[in-house]
Amino acid sequence: MDILVQKYGGTSVATPERIKNVANRVITAKNQGKSVIVVVSAMGDSTDDLIELAYQVNPKPSAREYDMLLTTGEQVSISLLAMAIQAQGYAAISLTGPQAGICTESCYGRARILNIETERIKKELSEGKIVIVAGFQGICQEGDITTLGRGGSDTTAVALAAALDGKVCEIYTDVDGVYTTNPRLVPQASKLEVISYDEMLELASLGAQVLHPRSVELGKHYGVEIHVRSSFNLNEGTIVKECNEVENKELVSGVAYDTNVAKVALLEIFNVPGISFKVFQALAEENIDVDIIVQSIGRDGKIDISFTLPRPELEKALNILEERVLKPIGGKGIVFDDSVAKLSIVGAGMVSRPGVAAKMFEALAKEDINIEMISTSEIKVSCIINDKDIEKGVKSVHQHFGLDKIG
Amino acid sequence: MDILVQKYGGTSVATPERIKNVANRVITAKNQGKSVIVVVSAMGDSTDDLIELAYQVNPKPSAREYDMLLTTGEQVSISLLAMAIQAQGYAAISLTGPQAGICTESCYGRARILNIETERIKKELSEGKIVIVAGFQGICQEGDITTLGRGGSDTTAVALAAALDGKVCEIYTDVDGVYTTNPRLVPQASKLEVISYDEMLELASLGAQVLHPRSVELGKHYGVEIHVRSSFNLNEGTIVKECNEVENKELVSGVAYDTNVAKVALLEIFNVPGISFKVFQALAEENIDVDIIVQSIGRDGKIDISFTLPRPELEKALNILEERVLKPIGGKGIVFDDSVAKLSIVGAGMVSRPGVAAKMFEALAKEDINIEMISTSEIKVSCIINDKDIEKGVKSVHQHFGLDKIG
Repeated sequence: MDILVQKYGGTSVATPERIKNVANRVITAKNQGKSVIVVVSAMGDSTDDLIELAYQVNPKPSAREYDMLLTTGEQVSISLLAMAIQAQGYAAISLTGPQAGICTESCYGRARILNIETERIKKELSEGKIVIVAGFQGICQEGDITTLGRGGSDTTAVALAAALDGKVCEIYTDVDGVYTTNPRLVPQASKLEVISYDEMLELASLGAQVLHPRSVELGKHYGVEIHVRSSFNLNEGTIVKECNEVENKELVSGVAYDTNVAKVALLEIFNVPGISFKVFQALAEENIDVDIIVQSIGRDGKIDISFTLPRPELEKALNILEERVLKPIGGKGIVFDDSVAKLSIVGAGMVSRPGVAAKMFEALAKEDINIEMISTSEIKVSCIINDKDIEKGVKSVHQHFGLDKIG
Repeated sequence: MDILVQKYGGTSVATPERIKNVANRVITAKNQGKSVIVVVSAMGDSTDDLIELAYQVNPKPSAREYDMLLTTGEQVSISLLAMAIQAQGYAAISLTGPQAGICTESCYGRARILNIETERIKKELSEGKIVIVAGFQGICQEGDITTLGRGGSDTTAVALAAALDGKVCEIYTDVDGVYTTNPRLVPQASKLEVISYDEMLELASLGAQVLHPRSVELGKHYGVEIHVRSSFNLNEGTIVKECNEVENKELVSGVAYDTNVAKVALLEIFNVPGISFKVFQALAEENIDVDIIVQSIGRDGKIDISFTLPRPELEKALNILEERVLKPIGGKGIVFDDSVAKLSIVGAGMVSRPGVAAKMFEALAKEDINIEMISTSEIKVSCIINDKDIEKGVKSVHQHFGLDKIG
């Protein structure tokens, strides 16, 4: 079987008209002789409507019931898409996550897929049916419905492609592909034809909200090519795959940014053994995702530890640090800044090419932008700057690395 | 365990406020020491909204996908009610039909329950939880989601009470109980305190849309008392149970009517052996529900057969009769009338009391209402009349049998 997995996001199935449009696209692929599996998200803003209902009956809804509620959104989309395909005279069947055999951890709200029991899907495909699977959801060992967290439908799609030995997973969204930076901010941004898994991972983690990082990890692990493209036109999108032709690559593939960032610094805390562990363990236990960490060189047995985190977690983090670090261990205090942003460049081409970071700092200096923290990896450089400078900074860096579209 | 099953209809859970109100009622029962199972329908008109979506993508949606779509409505209600109960500090868990072990025939849109695997529900009850079950839905042997058809949530509730050895099933709705006739039509109608299963069955089948007939059948078969009452006040409702004290009963318990009726007559068809079988088999194969049948005494080897059926099925029925009866067998033709209505009296008290039917005809004659067809059973008399006369007829019969409220 020539397996093709397609995934359509919420905006692509937001109305009955758009669902019919998706049906036509799916049928086109079927007519090309593919065994087509389609993963869909909930229609448009329907998930938000459900969330609003939940908070009207309970300000702190339990995770299990929240998953029970939200998964109805995808169940609506899959049945409607199956009907729309059937209206064209093609055989189609919708399957919920549990019916599609998507087995997850016993963890609500952000379960990971453990394995996929593919018997049912294979049976339906072998009968010539187009199989429509609800994204974002699965079933845990106890028989309860779980969700995979943000971007879960991308993960469902790539995991299905991997489990069925598909070579390609097409992710249809409302943009044409992956851009060198956000085209809404920088009109000169251009679409990338190809990007490596690692670069995409960095971009995805850095706030380019096209693909969810977990789906990229899965693609990389199982060698599934991910084709990101628009459901509103027939343009070729961006292919995410293993790229070995690094030599020919641009130095930098893209510029990402994230303005949903806050910075926290613990000042002059005693540098007892395991202090970093204590700090970040305390935060991890409360599920706070810490990003860039900088530890100062100690002086007089005291150090400063600063880090960034998502802005909505700031208050919670400050309380935890006060109670569980400062009070028991001692230190001068905590300072924070909730008006910072992260600006990053990503590129497999920067491996073993010195001076890339310096070039980025040059672009920021040209615009008088102060850099507050720096973090680097093999294929990325991130700077924390004041969030009022982010637009200026992105534009300057994008142009400085020669990414601006010609003409 | 002192099992109590409660069922709340769509109007009772139409808004977050009403869901909270239901939560309070459920908690009251829990605090009385009961093991409470709650069955809920979809919120208000949400099912209609889903149906509208379906017809926008496919004018003839497949039954399987239609069930997949509609069952999301109850899944939304159960999760919200569980959250609302949890908000009050009580343990609750929602279960879809499949999770609650409701196993049905492999038949979409109107599956019958085959059995209920009660392990999961018993486990949750034994942990002290209030169990919320999605009405109207189950799972068939193939693992697909099925629905139980109109009034399916009533059936779910009574079936659960039966499977768990519950003695009573409370059906909460937007009316105070079962009335001697529709109080919106006849303000003098009064609420019945008690009614027998058989009477309720006749009333339910005759268009008093308070309880679904299948739920009453189940209640009768398993000896579950059904208490019909309002979710908007604390009034006692109507108890449906086995009544042996027929002697003390009123002659007539209630007056029912149905204006969604059409009449068809096949004129002068050849009275070959099996002709009735041919006619009604042809209609049954197309799932057309025939009600009153009258066959004239034959003349010259020819007979007239007339019957009533739901008005929306009229056109389909006429085509079938033309193609499969008149053309192959021959006859003078078909006539029909799509402006008739059925008026019925029901009462266990009329068994072996002659003159009840005559008294009904007298009430209609007093108002100059012409009777077109008559049908009788042990505990009911039905007349087909012109639908413009229905209000006048119901009022006259209701008064004539002394059912009008005093004062």
